[in-house]
Amino acid sequence: MAEKKGIIQRLEEGVVIGDGGFVFELEKRGFCKAGPWTPEATIENPEAVRELHREFLRAGSDVMQAFTFYASDDKLENRANQAAIHGGRSVNQAACELAREVANEGDALVLGGLSQTPAYLSGLGEEAVKAQYRKQLDVFVDNKVDFLLAEYFEYLEEAVWAVEVLKESSLPVACSLAIGPEGDMAGVTPGDCAVRLVKAGAEIVGVNCHFDPFKSLETVRLMMEGIKAAGLSCHYMCQPLGYHTPDAGRQGFIDLPEFPFALEPRTLTRWDCHRYARDAYNLGVRYIGACCGMQPYHVRAISEELEEERGGLTAKASEKHGKWGDGLRQHTKPWVRARAQRDYWETLKPASGRPTCPSTSTPDNWGVKAGDDDLKQKTAETADEELAALQAKQKA
Amino acid sequence: MAEKKGIIQRLEEGVVIGDGGFVFELEKRGFCKAGPWTPEATIENPEAVRELHREFLRAGSDVMQAFTFYASDDKLENRANQAAIHGGRSVNQAACELAREVANEGDALVLGGLSQTPAYLSGLGEEAVKAQYRKQLDVFVDNKVDFLLAEYFEYLEEAVWAVEVLKESSLPVACSLAIGPEGDMAGVTPGDCAVRLVKAGAEIVGVNCHFDPFKSLETVRLMMEGIKAAGLSCHYMCQPLGYHTPDAGRQGFIDLPEFPFALEPRTLTRWDCHRYARDAYNLGVRYIGACCGMQPYHVRAISEELEEERGGLTAKASEKHGKWGDGLRQHTKPWVRARAQRDYWETLKPASGRPTCPSTSTPDNWGVKAGDDDLKQKTAETADEELAALQAKQKA
Amino acid sequence: MAEKKGIIQRLEEGVVIGDGGFVFELEKRGFCKAGPWTPEATIENPEAVRELHREFLRAGSDVMQAFTFYASDDKLENRANQAAIHGGRSVNQAACELAREVANEGDALVLGGLSQTPAYLSGLGEEAVKAQYRKQLDVFVDNKVDFLLAEYFEYLEEAVWAVEVLKESSLPVACSLAIGPEGDMAGVTPGDCAVRLVKAGAEIVGVNCHFDPFKSLETVRLMMEGIKAAGLSCHYMCQPLGYHTPDAGRQGFIDLPEFPFALEPRTLTRWDCHRYARDAYNLGVRYIGACCGMQPYHVRAISEELEEERGGLTAKASEKHGKWGDGLRQHTKPWVRARAQRDYWETLKPASGRPTCPSTSTPDNWGVKAGDDDLKQKTAETADEELAALQAKQKA
Amino acid sequence: MAEKKGIIQRLEEGVVIGDGGFVFELEKRGFCKAGPWTPEATIENPEAVRELHREFLRAGSDVMQAFTFYASDDKLENRANQAAIHGGRSVNQAACELAREVANEGDALVLGGLSQTPAYLSGLGEEAVKAQYRKQLDVFVDNKVDFLLAEYFEYLEEAVWAVEVLKESSLPVACSLAIGPEGDMAGVTPGDCAVRLVKAGAEIVGVNCHFDPFKSLETVRLMMEGIKAAGLSCHYMCQPLGYHTPDAGRQGFIDLPEFPFALEPRTLTRWDCHRYARDAYNLGVRYIGACCGMQPYHVRAISEELEEERGGLTAKASEKHGKWGDGLRQHTKPWVRARAQRDYWETLKPASGRPTCPSTSTPDNWGVKAGDDDLKQKTAETADEELAALQAKQKA
Repeated sequence: MAEKKGIIQRLEEGVVIGDGGFVFELEKRGFCKAGPWTPEATIENPEAVRELHREFLRAGSDVMQAFTFYASDDKLENRANQAAIHGGRSVNQAACELAREVANEGDALVLGGLSQTPAYLSGLGEEAVKAQYRKQLDVFVDNKVDFLLAEYFEYLEEAVWAVEVLKESSLPVACSLAIGPEGDMAGVTPGDCAVRLVKAGAEIVGVNCHFDPFKSLETVRLMMEGIKAAGLSCHYMCQPLGYHTPDAGRQGFIDLPEFPFALEPRTLTRWDCHRYARDAYNLGVRYIGACCGMQPYHVRAISEELEEERGGLTAKASEKHGKWGDGLRQHTKPWVRARAQRDYWETLKPASGRPTCPSTSTPDNWGVKAGDDDLKQKTAETADEELAALQAKQKA
Repeated sequence: MAEKKGIIQRLEEGVVIGDGGFVFELEKRGFCKAGPWTPEATIENPEAVRELHREFLRAGSDVMQAFTFYASDDKLENRANQAAIHGGRSVNQAACELAREVANEGDALVLGGLSQTPAYLSGLGEEAVKAQYRKQLDVFVDNKVDFLLAEYFEYLEEAVWAVEVLKESSLPVACSLAIGPEGDMAGVTPGDCAVRLVKAGAEIVGVNCHFDPFKSLETVRLMMEGIKAAGLSCHYMCQPLGYHTPDAGRQGFIDLPEFPFALEPRTLTRWDCHRYARDAYNLGVRYIGACCGMQPYHVRAISEELEEERGGLTAKASEKHGKWGDGLRQHTKPWVRARAQRDYWETLKPASGRPTCPSTSTPDNWGVKAGDDDLKQKTAETADEELAALQAKQKA
Repeated sequence: MAEKKGIIQRLEEGVVIGDGGFVFELEKRGFCKAGPWTPEATIENPEAVRELHREFLRAGSDVMQAFTFYASDDKLENRANQAAIHGGRSVNQAACELAREVANEGDALVLGGLSQTPAYLSGLGEEAVKAQYRKQLDVFVDNKVDFLLAEYFEYLEEAVWAVEVLKESSLPVACSLAIGPEGDMAGVTPGDCAVRLVKAGAEIVGVNCHFDPFKSLETVRLMMEGIKAAGLSCHYMCQPLGYHTPDAGRQGFIDLPEFPFALEPRTLTRWDCHRYARDAYNLGVRYIGACCGMQPYHVRAISEELEEERGGLTAKASEKHGKWGDGLRQHTKPWVRARAQRDYWETLKPASGRPTCPSTSTPDNWGVKAGDDDLKQKTAETADEELAALQAKQKA
Repeated sequence: MAEKKGIIQRLEEGVVIGDGGFVFELEKRGFCKAGPWTPEATIENPEAVRELHREFLRAGSDVMQAFTFYASDDKLENRANQAAIHGGRSVNQAACELAREVANEGDALVLGGLSQTPAYLSGLGEEAVKAQYRKQLDVFVDNKVDFLLAEYFEYLEEAVWAVEVLKESSLPVACSLAIGPEGDMAGVTPGDCAVRLVKAGAEIVGVNCHFDPFKSLETVRLMMEGIKAAGLSCHYMCQPLGYHTPDAGRQGFIDLPEFPFALEPRTLTRWDCHRYARDAYNLGVRYIGACCGMQPYHVRAISEELEEERGGLTAKASEKHGKWGDGLRQHTKPWVRARAQRDYWETLKPASGRPTCPSTSTPDNWGVKAGDDDLKQKTAETADEELAALQAKQKA
């Protein structure tokens, strides 16, 4: 196989489409547990992980992100998580192998990623956190992934530490924060976050998870302003939620009362993704991907919107999709055939079918920060009295 | 392998959990085309079909329904559908093999199903319709499926013909109509529909698709009243949508403006499915399944709600799910841990995150019926001028 | 002054426009108390009652309904109501004088009305109830009102008694029930209600209060069907709420959780009233009026919609209103001037500005009926422990 | 009659309650025309103006604001407004007399007010604008009003001119802008606006109209910060809309598609006003009033919330209102009696009864500013072709 183009060259030449969210989708399919959200499925149900990789490849993704989210040892062991029995090394190793296997079925790159740690939330300090990361980096380097990512950080400080560890390798490094326009949990603005990440060595910066595409792009726009004002430059990435979050506060969708088991009514349609892809492209974002809640058909919509910009490249899965609803020409009912048109879907305001429910929520806003007692993580399970105390705070 | 208990015995002894919707889920995964909605994936992407069977088995399904929806020859050929190249026989054959393979990985039964035909909509008459069905029945019998289903009928008349064909075999026969409380498209009430189906030989009757669980159960209730009034008896099944449809008219969700590409905000939560399972059980429905929009986690919720009624039987996928949100005890954030309780999720009114959208829609209501010109099906693709004429009607 | 045409002649020749709601409007202006809803303002603040009569006359009303709602002695004395000090006779007398005074400023008729009694709810029987009514009728006859109305009855039985009393005079008698399509609180259908009222002597029948215009017209349609089926005939009236009540149950808006202090978001726009007037006219209703929540501008909208049908008759208040928003031509802002067109207002879907609120509610449904202990009325005020017991039921 | 305390002394000693909106309320009653919104009712229907003054006095208002809104000569003559026949002097004179008459029925003060002019919007310059104001001021001084107000200014510059004119008298001067947190139409922040108004001589500053109470209080908070930062001091007033406007942009409710004929679903409940009054008081606002959409019962709610702060002063209209719904103890239905409690009303989320409507709108945002061609005012009526051109822009 001829050598594939690297990530930086791809970003310089055009658009890179990321993949969608794994933990939420595999949770719905029955292979990932909501709460710990750890990726032991790479060992326990590899065929399910492989299948999801293939669906994203088929939908147009240029990157197979190894399923190593929250795969640091301390996270796998947190709160009596049964995933601990596998050990971080083997979970990460299996993830790399699955991603590489499917990437080789197409022209995709393999990405190895780190995410935030219990060690940081519990206030254990830089060395403890970096030690967690180095264990994962070893696996990524051994497996010759194509580039690296530090993603899903609520605190810039920890993200900088992660980038510093990743830069100990010679691979390109990306970093995306789980922040919105208000900045990180310590109050650092998006512009300042971006500047510090680039100074730490990140070649690609952006945001992922926590907010919908439109709030996420607003955040990237603020990052761009900061980078420009500082006389720096970098590539930009955006991997937002597949859920509308107009009502989210600083901590994003985690605070919304619906997280994580009642987010369904917020799910993006494919047409929302067309708009997202167009807005992202116009803003200058070239790594356009997706996160929790984004399924293969959402990624296919991104791919379909940007076909022209990608030189006519068509996703395999588009063979099973009429662009802008054109497949409805084949429907048996005449009024559904009449919907085979772009204007219909672009202007439709979809109903929720839930007349007794509100359109927005009031986020929980407990205001606890890294190091606070309630944020200290433990390997023991949450005891009943501990839970009762939290629920008393919930009602207050 | 010891012989498995048959469907009738299972229904007499307790609850049977069906599987979820294939066409909608595989469309999102990239293997099925919205518009024709035909199951050629059994040949083109068998691993994707097999994986989805496995997810439902893992979620608690007792039945692997062979993916033969809309697999009559005339539907595969309708409106220039490319699926025609495979031919109906091979699509049905592959479907039976995949269902059997996965059923044998557990204690599940295999079900072979027919659904409504273009021949009927186009007014071609009883013999033409029955000829379509006999071709599919041959494959089911050859493959020794465990029982048969005539499902997704908008007209009782066609459903009766389908049952009559299925009764030419010696297998148990179920029949579910795509109707709501207002009855079939010709105006036959649910009670009368049920009576006529039982008289035609169906041992299990009920509804599937077209309406949400709560409207569907209301319809089954009306069927029960009809059966009782007629001095008959049968088993009842319910396989509703995974979408809220309080605003749907007689033709169900097909008429809603959001069908099929903007239904996301209507998606059921798992807690809606708990309520559905409980209501269905209390009503006396013993075949409790699901249809379009219902994913593996929805079926798992049905299974979890009915664990006690099923003698403590636990779905494999429940290993990755804390009942009533209990897995959130393992979350890193204290206010999310506080949500690890049944009462929280049972009473939450989920927001749509869409403040500029309505809660309900006004259904299209063109009032065309089987045999009308606009409902006549063709093998040619929909021409542009034909489409323009339909869109003119849409605006009128 | 030349003699005015009587109500029956007017209904035979064309459309009669009723007036709007007094108790709700005067409550907002500070002269009527929510809870008892009695009309002692006729004595305490006659200028306020006179002014509201004038506003309705100016808006196009052909009838000045004397403000005698709930003015039976037993209602004025109920639950320690301070209105009792005036006595029913004087309240009714003042009401008749005020209505006549303003009616004489135009071509309007004066209407004297009875409404349901505590005596009935408490199960005191026909003679006790009729005795209440006769006291009011005496005043109406003494004051030479132009016609009589028995309005706001939840039970047909009590309405029939009221009609029987009113027929002891020689004046034309109308009767409107506070019911919806489900019928009265005892389960009598709208069709049967209408038949029995006409047989009791009512020349005009219909509905008022409790439901929005569209549910109310549906109810009148059912009444018409009943009358026709019985081979009878009569005139029809409709005086609905100025609030949208798609979610109301049998007892109407009284059961909605928002009654009576949070109904604002349900308020009809003037354009809703245009549609109501047109629908009512098309249905064959000729007494088109309004009830609680309907303000003078709502009545003006009815009048403007039916100008042509009324021979070009224009309400005085229309001098201060550009039909279909035409007055906006005089606005200072260009984008508001652009709204001076019928199509803009007819198609607008007005937002509630309340993103955390639902669109519909779940009605209270206590299921108590006339004669039940909780419905027995008393002259003593509601004691704290009595209230606490009710609130315990509310939570259950 | 003993001399009344002046406005400044009242503000220093406690809370002053303003009155509610006249133009919107009198439009609904049939005496004021939407579009021009001018106060010729002072001459044409003085009894209606007097009655509304009395209702506000009865509801607890301490100030009778003469109905001189938009009563400059150039506004009365704008776009073929028939009000021009009366002339500004007589309209203002009648307004002062009516306000004084009712003020003398209680302890209220009389306020004379100016508002923004067509001269300013059309770019005619300082002297032309000030000439308009001086004509109104003459009438206020001749009639010995108690204090003066420049209100409803979208541009700080014009407001400063108005204050400068008012300061030519020796009366206390207040000034309220029609702005939100984003500042005036020229981009001046609320803080800077407040500082410049105080420097121009205003003793009371704040906002009125254009935004709901909660956005208005946020604006006043920003004004307070500006005043404090500048080392200045003043009294604060707030007279917000009676409509929820979470979705309004810089120009407030004028831009919302519902303005002015479909705002009903946004109407505040009395409980919203309790919250407004409490929040305003806590913020340090001492002139707490109301504007368009606020009816007498809204002002009564403000008064009831602040009874304790006002030394137990009770509005006359509270005799017809049980605080926090207590009057419902006298209702005939037990489930309504159960609602006689503060907690019920404080926590209720009122439904709109409009399931096909959104919760928020997208404001028109034409971006035209004072002096732009489309904003130039004329005495000629809006011609049809002019209107068509605007409607073409509306659709673009």
